[in-house]
Amino acid sequence: MSFKLTILGCSSAIPKIDRNPTAQLLNVNERFFLIDCGEGTQIQLRRYELNFQRINHIFISHLHGDHYFGVIGLITTMHLLGRNKDLHIYAHKELKDIIDLQLSASNTELNYPLFFHPLAEDEGSIIFEDDDIKVSNLILNHSIKCSGFLFEEKRSKRKIINLEVEKYNVPYDKMNSLKDGADWINSKGEIISNEILTTQNTSPNRYAFCTDTKYDESLVEKVKGVDLLYHEATFTSDLELRAIETGHSTTLQAASIARKAKVKTLAIGHYSQRYRDLDKLLTQTQKGFKNTILSYPGLLIDFKHL
Amino acid sequence: MSFKLTILGCSSAIPKIDRNPTAQLLNVNERFFLIDCGEGTQIQLRRYELNFQRINHIFISHLHGDHYFGVIGLITTMHLLGRNKDLHIYAHKELKDIIDLQLSASNTELNYPLFFHPLAEDEGSIIFEDDDIKVSNLILNHSIKCSGFLFEEKRSKRKIINLEVEKYNVPYDKMNSLKDGADWINSKGEIISNEILTTQNTSPNRYAFCTDTKYDESLVEKVKGVDLLYHEATFTSDLELRAIETGHSTTLQAASIARKAKVKTLAIGHYSQRYRDLDKLLTQTQKGFKNTILSYPGLLIDFKHL
Repeated sequence: MSFKLTILGCSSAIPKIDRNPTAQLLNVNERFFLIDCGEGTQIQLRRYELNFQRINHIFISHLHGDHYFGVIGLITTMHLLGRNKDLHIYAHKELKDIIDLQLSASNTELNYPLFFHPLAEDEGSIIFEDDDIKVSNLILNHSIKCSGFLFEEKRSKRKIINLEVEKYNVPYDKMNSLKDGADWINSKGEIISNEILTTQNTSPNRYAFCTDTKYDESLVEKVKGVDLLYHEATFTSDLELRAIETGHSTTLQAASIARKAKVKTLAIGHYSQRYRDLDKLLTQTQKGFKNTILSYPGLLIDFKHL
Repeated sequence: MSFKLTILGCSSAIPKIDRNPTAQLLNVNERFFLIDCGEGTQIQLRRYELNFQRINHIFISHLHGDHYFGVIGLITTMHLLGRNKDLHIYAHKELKDIIDLQLSASNTELNYPLFFHPLAEDEGSIIFEDDDIKVSNLILNHSIKCSGFLFEEKRSKRKIINLEVEKYNVPYDKMNSLKDGADWINSKGEIISNEILTTQNTSPNRYAFCTDTKYDESLVEKVKGVDLLYHEATFTSDLELRAIETGHSTTLQAASIARKAKVKTLAIGHYSQRYRDLDKLLTQTQKGFKNTILSYPGLLIDFKHL
């Protein structure tokens, strides 16, 4: 199953020409989840030739503008381009009024169904779930209510061993039950154990998106062992006081969460506009957690390479 | 007096990577007026190195998103960058609620005074006026209520002839009254006519911004003889029916208004995203009005060269 993340923006509140505000696109087996949607996200999607009509679910972490000012433009363009399939938005409840007011001001009635799912304020609740993936709400510690999102593939089904199913003449319509772990009973009543016919699949991918947040050790348990942790690193470590005042984290704090949670890879982002060159942020974070990467617009992270 | 217009965006509702939605910056003697503010305008201002803290007045034609979705981002960034001087927004009244709701959702109290001036729905009312310029409201004919804006320098003051004022020993503190047309009476009671001491200045600049609008001949009188008419030309002339349906104009219709109003120069814009190459739009418009230019992001129009 493919599991790929494209970074569309990685700036903090004040955008720079070459760093759009926060937005990411997660592709889980050709289903597309948009995570945050700062101003200009629709243009970023076009720039990287990502067809935004394939997005059916939009997750918004919180209602600071650099995380959602692009939503209204995106959903309006989807409408103008003739979308008719459902769109789901998961965000704090005030966003619904903001969207409704703007649609009303332009006399727009969307020609597709828009479902709004207010984010609960309790920890760990599941926001979205289907056969392949579930998305949980992580309550972050910011200056206004703010959610992180944990995307987890469900336990991968078992993998058929073609040679064995041919040898035992298992009919094709039994493949799904084999993948679910069932044994096979042939016409003579003999039981062929599932372990002979299948093998364990790769472990499910897990991605935790955590911005904006103060350094908060309670996050460690929630993101334990994920393949990729995106954690904000708005400031270098000398500005720790400024980070505390503004509800943000430093490079070393992001590294500390990654190290304690034993994640596979850390991606930092949400850089303050004061940093023109990001090398210092990367080097500093790597001192605390070696396997760190910088996010930047256009970066594609394929989880199979993590 | 300098009078210069920078085009920041010229796309219609669906933005393209290389054509932001509508926004323009008018510089009248180093005072800056922003006209419309589509999504991404703050980035366009940065791209062209225009200091947006110098903007004190924002005019919004109507509440279709491609003309205002960038306002909230811009005023938020002004706040984050420490602005403390007044900002004035002139727009239809619903925009105030939209802005207030978004500021409230992020617990933001702007650290500068924001004055909202609802646009009247009657023709020709003066929206803004100071010693040098006045801005009038032009009611356009679109699918929702929509205003054009006419920027007019006031009659330029007369120009001092340095050699003559020296010859007649006119004191320095009389210069302003000479510029206003007064004669000079010297200590002997002799009257020196203003026409000896000053000369007529260049004629005042006039700029009419007209988007979005159907073809409407009532516009002709309102924009008569302006130096520059910006008139939308969303469609080529073969799509006249589509233009009528959507409340827009074609190339030849824009040309017709310019010709009938005897304007000096016509700039077209608000191009439909279906046109990749804009040459056809230009050539077609020029058939109806020769002195036509294409607007495009980054174009600087200096009125002294029109």
